[in-house]
Amino acid sequence: MKPIKISEAVVRRLPVYLQYLNELSKREVQTVSSQDLGHKLDLNPAQIRKDLAYFGEFGRKGVGYDVTYLIEKIRQILKLDQPLNVGLVGAGNLGHALCNYNKYLKDNMKIVAVFDADPHKYGERINNLIVQPTSELARLVQELNIRIGIITVPAPEAQNVANHFVEAGIEALLNFAPVILKVPDEIRIHHADFTTELLSLAYYMETGGEHA
Amino acid sequence: MKPIKISEAVVRRLPVYLQYLNELSKREVQTVSSQDLGHKLDLNPAQIRKDLAYFGEFGRKGVGYDVTYLIEKIRQILKLDQPLNVGLVGAGNLGHALCNYNKYLKDNMKIVAVFDADPHKYGERINNLIVQPTSELARLVQELNIRIGIITVPAPEAQNVANHFVEAGIEALLNFAPVILKVPDEIRIHHADFTTELLSLAYYMETGGEHA
Repeated sequence: MKPIKISEAVVRRLPVYLQYLNELSKREVQTVSSQDLGHKLDLNPAQIRKDLAYFGEFGRKGVGYDVTYLIEKIRQILKLDQPLNVGLVGAGNLGHALCNYNKYLKDNMKIVAVFDADPHKYGERINNLIVQPTSELARLVQELNIRIGIITVPAPEAQNVANHFVEAGIEALLNFAPVILKVPDEIRIHHADFTTELLSLAYYMETGGEHA
Repeated sequence: MKPIKISEAVVRRLPVYLQYLNELSKREVQTVSSQDLGHKLDLNPAQIRKDLAYFGEFGRKGVGYDVTYLIEKIRQILKLDQPLNVGLVGAGNLGHALCNYNKYLKDNMKIVAVFDADPHKYGERINNLIVQPTSELARLVQELNIRIGIITVPAPEAQNVANHFVEAGIEALLNFAPVILKVPDEIRIHHADFTTELLSLAYYMETGGEHA
């Protein structure tokens, strides 16, 4: 497949489409309209048609999109048709919670190693994973072909962990620490800061709202 | 202040600006250019100028933006100048992790109550919060003027918890369960699904990349 350059906003919507399409597929629904997608995902149907048009003409007027075909296409575009191994540093509450998400990560994407700097945590079992010392990071990133790193350490340690990941040859990082990290331009980094989500919700509140 | 209608993408960037501006303010930096913001936050400076222009002309050519003034303006726009109470259902690993973020939630926004359906968790202390039975949700939402709900229960329970929140009179929801929830149109709901973040990162990977 020829690589298509699509906008970041679209890239962020594709997994949302995919999630709902997978639900439909499980219920053996065969086609879906942009209206239905829009209603379910709280998006403008015209926006959805525009997003999906990036990848060629899939929708048929009056019939809608073929669910199976759309799933396959989005998986290809998101490169989920290849295995993608993920490593996580920070075996605290958030690290545990994310490892528990592993079961929702079909699509060949898996957390395959968990690290922590605290010797008390070495050997601790999280589902099928065993917490490793951070000193093993570089070795295991190579050995397990880990390409994405997740950072769930406290803010003051996050930059240090990011540096370790970069030195180990990671390609992308997902940072949950509430701090902005500096990495080389060729490393893709996403900030999954929960406070950002929460603060952006505040915008939609009525001013000075009180319960009646 | 007259309410301004701004796009969802901009609303989601404002907390990111705010976070970095707060860092600058702590370091007693007084002005910042759109170039500096762009470099630090991996955004196009022109995009930043456009975003900030929504709220009037703050930047001064050759000087940049006044950090303190910009913080104040963004806080106003995000309505962070009023107290905003948050309730959370699901005192598992993720729930614990989010309660620990409370200390980063300046700006009058706080998780003020935690709930769980498991009697074994009632009374458990998470920082300064005590886990309450979910049956207390409606009463405490009213009593504590909780306006935003966070859902950190397993996927099969999430819709049920959303219904409880809606009945209790919540205005907005932040859902961490990997499932699409149905709520009335007047309720604002954001999905903070970690798998979405991770899957959208995959797009940026080189195809078939292997460590050298």
